[in-house]
Amino acid sequence: MVNIAILGYGVVGSGVYEVAQKNAESIKRKSGHEIRVGRILDLRDFPDHPQKTLFTKNFDDILNDHQISIVAEVMGGVTPAYDYTKAALLAGKSVVTSNKELVATHGTELLAIAAQKGVSYMFEASVGGGIPIIHPLNQCLAANELSEITGILNGTTNYILTKMIRANQSFEQALADAQAKGYAERNPSADVDGHDACRKICILASLAFGKAVDYSRIYTEGITGIALEDVAYARRLDYVIKLIGYARRDAGRVLCRVSPMLVPMTNPLAGVEDVFNAIMVHGDSIGDVMFYGRGAGKLPTASAVMADIIEIVRGDGTSNYIWKQTDEDFLDDYQNDTLALYVRTKGVSKKDAERVFGEIAFEACLNDSGEAAFITPAGREADLRAKLSALPAPISCIRVLQ
Amino acid sequence: MVNIAILGYGVVGSGVYEVAQKNAESIKRKSGHEIRVGRILDLRDFPDHPQKTLFTKNFDDILNDHQISIVAEVMGGVTPAYDYTKAALLAGKSVVTSNKELVATHGTELLAIAAQKGVSYMFEASVGGGIPIIHPLNQCLAANELSEITGILNGTTNYILTKMIRANQSFEQALADAQAKGYAERNPSADVDGHDACRKICILASLAFGKAVDYSRIYTEGITGIALEDVAYARRLDYVIKLIGYARRDAGRVLCRVSPMLVPMTNPLAGVEDVFNAIMVHGDSIGDVMFYGRGAGKLPTASAVMADIIEIVRGDGTSNYIWKQTDEDFLDDYQNDTLALYVRTKGVSKKDAERVFGEIAFEACLNDSGEAAFITPAGREADLRAKLSALPAPISCIRVLQ
Repeated sequence: MVNIAILGYGVVGSGVYEVAQKNAESIKRKSGHEIRVGRILDLRDFPDHPQKTLFTKNFDDILNDHQISIVAEVMGGVTPAYDYTKAALLAGKSVVTSNKELVATHGTELLAIAAQKGVSYMFEASVGGGIPIIHPLNQCLAANELSEITGILNGTTNYILTKMIRANQSFEQALADAQAKGYAERNPSADVDGHDACRKICILASLAFGKAVDYSRIYTEGITGIALEDVAYARRLDYVIKLIGYARRDAGRVLCRVSPMLVPMTNPLAGVEDVFNAIMVHGDSIGDVMFYGRGAGKLPTASAVMADIIEIVRGDGTSNYIWKQTDEDFLDDYQNDTLALYVRTKGVSKKDAERVFGEIAFEACLNDSGEAAFITPAGREADLRAKLSALPAPISCIRVLQ
Repeated sequence: MVNIAILGYGVVGSGVYEVAQKNAESIKRKSGHEIRVGRILDLRDFPDHPQKTLFTKNFDDILNDHQISIVAEVMGGVTPAYDYTKAALLAGKSVVTSNKELVATHGTELLAIAAQKGVSYMFEASVGGGIPIIHPLNQCLAANELSEITGILNGTTNYILTKMIRANQSFEQALADAQAKGYAERNPSADVDGHDACRKICILASLAFGKAVDYSRIYTEGITGIALEDVAYARRLDYVIKLIGYARRDAGRVLCRVSPMLVPMTNPLAGVEDVFNAIMVHGDSIGDVMFYGRGAGKLPTASAVMADIIEIVRGDGTSNYIWKQTDEDFLDDYQNDTLALYVRTKGVSKKDAERVFGEIAFEACLNDSGEAAFITPAGREADLRAKLSALPAPISCIRVLQ
């Protein structure tokens, strides 16, 4: 019998409890041990809970309980999750988490402490909800040199963009719809400004490339500036707009970026709709491989937390996920990436645009306003933007996925 | 240092050698050990190979080499792969394989021998080429009760169907094209008659549901009967035709089937084209999750073989994949499945069809021949076919994925 503790009895925490109850049999069969929730930390009271004696408001009750060997930290945020996680690891307990903010901020240190204490710090649930991605990246694709990750990493923004694309809702309407459905918070900034996707691509890049990426240095642009006109022009040019977390390694340098992108309709990512997430990974042997599923939600995320717990119980998990702090400055400027730009502009003819960029895809006058949109040839982003300054300032400018 | 042997220096075997050479550094970093190809078994001579001293024609040279702890069996076929695998396991060597035929035929026995000897028998490469699917099914989704697997499991038939759908080629033309490109064998039966997909769904079902499925009892229908008319009607009804390996568990009973199916355009499987494979898995917590990538090819498959080797070297892999022989007859008749049928017929009006089936989707007269196609409501397959016998015999009848 293995005793676990749950830190935080919110959406994910109650999901972990639920999965542990309802799938107890199969979890026992797969892990080789009965896994029992031994303690739950939450500041609130749950007087109607069937196991209300499990609850405590004092973390020390968990820290000092030698029967508890694994802690599921599903509180979110850095404080006090960081202190609790560190203390648990130092006390020789393994920690599993869905807390992308903590992993992106202090993951390097926490991984090092876990390795030093011979326990595990695992975070499958921190990216892609229930989609297996951390483990496959680290283990199943281990025979590959990974060079590129392209992901739809945030379900809220994907839902909003899907509503804009499919139902012609404005950003504001689609956001209100997402809030009404509980997909978006009342303060939606973490999602719509790209911060959530930024933490996630930071974790994926650190893992895939083996070096700690500083998320505060990742260029991050959200979807608040996307207009229905852009959605319509994109469709006519055979693209859809998605919020893309992107990371690539080239000759030892790593480039990361979060921004809306035009995704060609022929790319499997283009068909990823609603709250679904998908992560495309490129390896030198495997080529492109994609992982798709629900990127959030109570039970999907809880099942990923439980998968990490099962892996630890089976004895497979110790110090599995390794990236290192490095002093070298390996992050490349995002403006050095090679890509194309979509440009929506006014009073610019195809001839004007081709004088600057050469032959281009051009869609004129969607709405009789004198507007037009075009896609530049591929080039270094900084060079494209320099060329663009020869034309009137664009109404919008969105990167294009190759 | 870990010494491995490669049995069979064909496409996959030479790929394993190549991956071991070119990614030696990262494999060492990820596995914690240098992994060296110590011996290669092949009946042919390779006088120009840079390491020609590695080759032997005698399996005993590998079996009796105590330095070799892991054997990569990539010969294919049951004979002599079965004897070699059994002997290697009994000698205390772990075996990894891409050999779906052997795993589907003797996997239960070989897994039991491996468990008994405390070594591993692993086969990530046997399904989906380089796509991580065996490991995620077994480990990452371990907190789920899995209920359904729906897969495009054969790249050759998917290529042929894509050519029929996209380029309006007949089955014969598309097959010739696939043969010219090396995607299809001169005798294409294993692919186009569904036998390859049958072995793969057998392996996935055994793993997901924990019981050995007898592949010889899986209803298997290939794509040789698919006509361009069916492709065209399917498109008008908003479907594409794919060869689908399907398995589900319901109340302890397992139903497996390989057949062409009409896949709704809104299903992510509909967008899986060319030689790509994709496997959709349904779990009670995660919902739908999909794995997508190259289902065959030298380096993708080799990288999956190497991933298993790395997992064994890290000490994570011992007796991981477990299904058991059972005496109970748990296989359900495929005709008990609930689905809809697509029917192409001649001289049947919408009224005729609705008299039998009630309200239906109906497309008439694609080509002025008096033909029409319709989709029945969902029902038990056996019941639908009984009803269908009230109408003139259909020209074609294809299952519809819900």
